[in-house]
Amino acid sequence: MGCIHENLIAEAEAVVERLRESDLTVVTAESCTGGLIAACLSHGKEASRCFQGGFVVYTKAQKREVLGVNDRLLSEQGAVNTEVARQMAEGAIKRSPASLAVAVTGVLGPDPDEDNNPPGLIYLGLAQRGKPTTVVRHQATAVDPDVTREWTVLRALQLLKQTAGYG
Amino acid sequence: MGCIHENLIAEAEAVVERLRESDLTVVTAESCTGGLIAACLSHGKEASRCFQGGFVVYTKAQKREVLGVNDRLLSEQGAVNTEVARQMAEGAIKRSPASLAVAVTGVLGPDPDEDNNPPGLIYLGLAQRGKPTTVVRHQATAVDPDVTREWTVLRALQLLKQTAGYG
Repeated sequence: MGCIHENLIAEAEAVVERLRESDLTVVTAESCTGGLIAACLSHGKEASRCFQGGFVVYTKAQKREVLGVNDRLLSEQGAVNTEVARQMAEGAIKRSPASLAVAVTGVLGPDPDEDNNPPGLIYLGLAQRGKPTTVVRHQATAVDPDVTREWTVLRALQLLKQTAGYG
Repeated sequence: MGCIHENLIAEAEAVVERLRESDLTVVTAESCTGGLIAACLSHGKEASRCFQGGFVVYTKAQKREVLGVNDRLLSEQGAVNTEVARQMAEGAIKRSPASLAVAVTGVLGPDPDEDNNPPGLIYLGLAQRGKPTTVVRHQATAVDPDVTREWTVLRALQLLKQTAGYG
């Protein structure tokens, strides 16, 4: 097999096709997925037409310094909540010419994060230029972090595909 | 299997262990690998101790805007050369508190890039705080982009491991 699981690549290729049809471009902002959404989107031959790049902000400091996530929010409420996902998505779209930004912050597990957020808690943000940002929350029941990782990347790609379809 | 090929994950785990032993942290700057080096480094449970994040700068505009790569260099010499790899690595280390930055720019193929750089041409940059940046050039002979992708990610991880070993 290739570097990345074929299920993820197949979904990413469907996203790229939809983005191209709708003449949209995308940027990512990732915490727990660590760049895997971006890597999937960059995979196909046609990626350069619609994939701009991404920001992997694994630490709170990088979320603040690179994407402008509010420092007080991070220190008082932690990095895994609706508002951080929203600020990550909006920070990414602001720092690129992309039409869409998808953001992920969460806890893959197996342990809770430093602020005691439970494993499997995931927030996905989607920013669109000139439209309100949306955030969805998910509590995965899987115990295996890699299963939650795969679910999260697929869900982020599906969000992009749905949005591009109605763009 | 998991989301990412186990060979890459195994090498990334070895890097994380070496970085921890040497009390070093890392940030990435990726073009053609699209975030996959960052995703590998973030994979392990101990990643949060040494992985800060990464910059996926797929387009020339993102290389310039996000990492400060020189615009004239990009327009006159393209995005695949020693100097762009150096500026990406140094741009990334400047934008994080990390001790090391690894950067990749290249052409996975199967076709040449927009500036006619051949498929398989890869530059890897390694920046260390307070030391000169090094860049290595590689011309892969593989025809399959995914084989070149795997080689490139492995080589980047090996560079980090070697550097951490002598850090």
